[in-house]
Amino acid sequence: MQAILLFAHGARAESWARPFRAIQDRLRDQRPGIAVELAFLEFMAPDFATAIDRLNAQGATQVLVCPLFLGVGGHVLRDLPALVDTARTRWPELSIECAGSPGDDPQVLDALAQYCLRQFSGPG
Amino acid sequence: MQAILLFAHGARAESWARPFRAIQDRLRDQRPGIAVELAFLEFMAPDFATAIDRLNAQGATQVLVCPLFLGVGGHVLRDLPALVDTARTRWPELSIECAGSPGDDPQVLDALAQYCLRQFSGPG
Repeated sequence: MQAILLFAHGARAESWARPFRAIQDRLRDQRPGIAVELAFLEFMAPDFATAIDRLNAQGATQVLVCPLFLGVGGHVLRDLPALVDTARTRWPELSIECAGSPGDDPQVLDALAQYCLRQFSGPG
Repeated sequence: MQAILLFAHGARAESWARPFRAIQDRLRDQRPGIAVELAFLEFMAPDFATAIDRLNAQGATQVLVCPLFLGVGGHVLRDLPALVDTARTRWPELSIECAGSPGDDPQVLDALAQYCLRQFSGPG
């Protein structure tokens, strides 16, 4: 079974996770045959290993990790590869691959630019 | 003159800023009559006050701040309002308003979900 693991930073405010849960909901709605979990680097649960364990328990064989970080810095360049390496050692039967950053995706960038312009044209 | 101030976190890796500069470029291309600057909370320049100063020097009278944070946590809830308050005191002739988070924008969320699905359907 194929699976997507959404990976976000996490924060102390519970409301912070709302967009990431909304993306998880969209993916589950649009692709009900794919297992979709959400993991956090810090402050929030589940962490990366726990989410991989959940996907494994659901019968996942191939996991695509989508880092939901717009900018590519230390978290994507160092923290995430380290978590993936550890998970590959722990679940050798699982194929775990990482997608690129959504911040390099022209359609995501277009949507963000359009969001700014809509705010700008709005009331006030 | 109307202006947009894009506000992002910043990071040590220079490459981190690429998506935010790409959004700035899109806005400048699409709305050449609007001044568009990019400011960072930490690690990168310019900071918020410097960017407001630049907009002021360009003749801006109304500034819309668009926080390019997907999740709404301490940076958007506390750090940004403090920066806005300080700027309003320093530039009382300037109207400075803040937009909501792009992480609450359905079209941005759709684009992020579609990005995940495209990675998933891609090679490999």
